Amino acid sequence: MDAPTLIQACRGQATRHVPIWIMRQAGRYLPAYQEVRAKHDFLTMCHVPELAAEVTLQPVREFGFDAAIIFSDILLPLEPMGIEVQFIEGKGPRLAPQIRNMQDIAKLIDADFDPSSCFLGQALQAVRHELAADKALIGFAGAPWTMACYAVEGMGSRDYAVVKQLMNTDPAALHALLDKLTTVLIRWLRMQLDAGADAFQVFDSWADALAPMDYREFALPYLRRIFETLRPMGKPGILFSKDAGAFAAENCQLPIDVLAVDWRVDLAALRKQHTGTGPTAYQGNLDPLALLGNRETLLEKAKRILSENATTPGYIFNLGHGVTPATPVENVRALVDCVHEFRSAT
Amino acid sequence: MDAPTLIQACRGQATRHVPIWIMRQAGRYLPAYQEVRAKHDFLTMCHVPELAAEVTLQPVREFGFDAAIIFSDILLPLEPMGIEVQFIEGKGPRLAPQIRNMQDIAKLIDADFDPSSCFLGQALQAVRHELAADKALIGFAGAPWTMACYAVEGMGSRDYAVVKQLMNTDPAALHALLDKLTTVLIRWLRMQLDAGADAFQVFDSWADALAPMDYREFALPYLRRIFETLRPMGKPGILFSKDAGAFAAENCQLPIDVLAVDWRVDLAALRKQHTGTGPTAYQGNLDPLALLGNRETLLEKAKRILSENATTPGYIFNLGHGVTPATPVENVRALVDCVHEFRSAT
Repeated sequence: MDAPTLIQACRGQATRHVPIWIMRQAGRYLPAYQEVRAKHDFLTMCHVPELAAEVTLQPVREFGFDAAIIFSDILLPLEPMGIEVQFIEGKGPRLAPQIRNMQDIAKLIDADFDPSSCFLGQALQAVRHELAADKALIGFAGAPWTMACYAVEGMGSRDYAVVKQLMNTDPAALHALLDKLTTVLIRWLRMQLDAGADAFQVFDSWADALAPMDYREFALPYLRRIFETLRPMGKPGILFSKDAGAFAAENCQLPIDVLAVDWRVDLAALRKQHTGTGPTAYQGNLDPLALLGNRETLLEKAKRILSENATTPGYIFNLGHGVTPATPVENVRALVDCVHEFRSAT
Repeated sequence: MDAPTLIQACRGQATRHVPIWIMRQAGRYLPAYQEVRAKHDFLTMCHVPELAAEVTLQPVREFGFDAAIIFSDILLPLEPMGIEVQFIEGKGPRLAPQIRNMQDIAKLIDADFDPSSCFLGQALQAVRHELAADKALIGFAGAPWTMACYAVEGMGSRDYAVVKQLMNTDPAALHALLDKLTTVLIRWLRMQLDAGADAFQVFDSWADALAPMDYREFALPYLRRIFETLRPMGKPGILFSKDAGAFAAENCQLPIDVLAVDWRVDLAALRKQHTGTGPTAYQGNLDPLALLGNRETLLEKAKRILSENATTPGYIFNLGHGVTPATPVENVRALVDCVHEFRSAT
């Protein structure tokens, strides 16, 4: 049997249509999601496999996306490490304790995960069971640097001042934290692949905080370790690096299958520059706010990206960031149809 | 008489030492600034030439920076256009009315400025009178796209949803706004150069919101018009584009003298790539948060940037973004001394 369309694209193979999924597709713009969310808080939806599986499947049923990405949150593997995670309505995550020095780091638990007993493994198994064979299931994790930001800051941050203070005063401690996080994140991802995920995506949402010298020291080596370690499992690895513009060339040299970029990157130019030396495939990168405009402008922009990128294999359509809650459902439907109907002129 | 060191560097000439100034150098980290600020609100300090001149000169006196940048705010030219600007403590700017459609845009006043009667011209004249001949005085303005963001959103924005909605529903209106802003910004900058500024910097702080196709349509042409129009005045023009990584190559083709980049760009690699075809000089790009770390790490990072960039002419040391209020004054002093003492190994 053929691999799911999206997996074929990850491998650089020609596909019958251009595959599409969108980040945060199981999210607040979707009425069916809102119905579940009205009855349960966000963490409960993550922790109860039946609920997570249900909202994971909704957007695939509704729009025919080529992949389901498991409903979860990048912060959840911190819980078994000994960090309590809360989501405060309108404010975002709050973590305790905050990890600020070598003593704090030493106390973190080297968590491991079993696909059949972990809620996330159970959710993945349930989704894979329901999902059609031509649809891919994507697992995910945060990148070590991004996870370290949360662990140190204890919340989102505008300028990452606390984690950078640690970097600029006790770099050895930051390395110790990144090392420990990387070990657990590899286990977290492996468990997801064991549970039935067909591919995995690593989100480095806060890569854009770092100067190149710091990115090379505190981000790249740990990303490399994740993708190198999981490569023998034979399932495609996708790296999404926000603000990839500055670091795209270096990310292309990582042992990844797919580079996913935000909307500020000229994806066609990037692919051209790295043909034959970079990843097998690329993913992206429509501005998510184009979905708030009128249909005509939206589809014009989508077609521009398609004509620049989808005429050669190894391309997956996606947004450059998560879909926003205010997005009209009909615009999402029009976008998916537009991508699926696209035929290269060549 | 020789031009100020910084102006020589803008022109790609060899200089006796590497020139340095830092963005927001007249700011809250400086006790002398805090003393003035304790007695006057921010807008008063901008509007009263004596106060603006005093805080502009403070950091040059204190640390020996090679340039003074006039104390002001990018939003001020909006006032004579008919937009009221307020700064709410802890919240940032609030503008009224917000500019949302063609009718709003038609009402905007085509303001013009006279260097001897405008508060900003008077402040510049006072500073240039006091400033030593080897120090440069820099005037500035916001880029048209960034100013349009403020005019439409009415405040800072996390995702620029409102201005992007205008872009994706009524692009002609956004173009009309950008056109009008560009005309006024050119006059605003010309007035500053007439009043004694030796160079000017355009801040495109919100360039990082745009996809390449939108950057090419809504940002680049208006930047080009500013630099082309002012070029015959013979004073160096600097473009600071935040998140320049994605757009650096295109910015290098603008008729600018200096490209200033944020801390996420590999400046040495960028210069190498555009040798002979790009701007005459480059400015940047230490992470401002490196100033919150220990002295040793700070100077190590500064020296790394110097050794990569300052061994050839056409380089100005700066931060990749504004200095933060929590920065220890002694770290600023150590940084300036380190840059001034740097001697290329060649």
